Amino acid sequence: MQSVILINAFEVRAGQEEQFKTAWHQVAERLRHARGFRSTRLHESLDPQARFRFINVAEWESPQHFQAAMQEVGEQLRATISYQSYPALYQVIAE
Amino acid sequence: MQSVILINAFEVRAGQEEQFKTAWHQVAERLRHARGFRSTRLHESLDPQARFRFINVAEWESPQHFQAAMQEVGEQLRATISYQSYPALYQVIAE
Repeated sequence: MQSVILINAFEVRAGQEEQFKTAWHQVAERLRHARGFRSTRLHESLDPQARFRFINVAEWESPQHFQAAMQEVGEQLRATISYQSYPALYQVIAE
Repeated sequence: MQSVILINAFEVRAGQEEQFKTAWHQVAERLRHARGFRSTRLHESLDPQARFRFINVAEWESPQHFQAAMQEVGEQLRATISYQSYPALYQVIAE
């Protein structure tokens, strides 16, 4: 199966950016060592008023690898990253 | 200046996927030849119920190059891609 791309758009209020980044780095550090992890890129909007202030785009070997990693860091993830977000798995269909 | 990443999340209702993809390809074909265009990747969610059924992630040389290209295809873009979307420019801040 083709690798999958996790795209997660975060709504982060003004003034919470640093707190978000600290929490994101903690979880990213854990996930980086999970089986099937390939890469991640955290994007910050140029416009501070953008609906989604941060968007993470990460590549995983398969949906199963991703779900297993989520299980593992589940609790910590929910506790540290308590921002409205819209995570979903995707496949690239056009380049 | 570092290149910028356009990330645009589209809400596309069930049954409109093919129509969306046709419209997206038409506009992408135009943008591909614009000055400062670097790359684009259209992502389709694995889950048909995902909030954002399609997300485009495109790299542009600068915000100015992107805005100039938008001006050029502006009318056509709005006419063909009439789906709720959340376009914004980003910079990669962590990998």
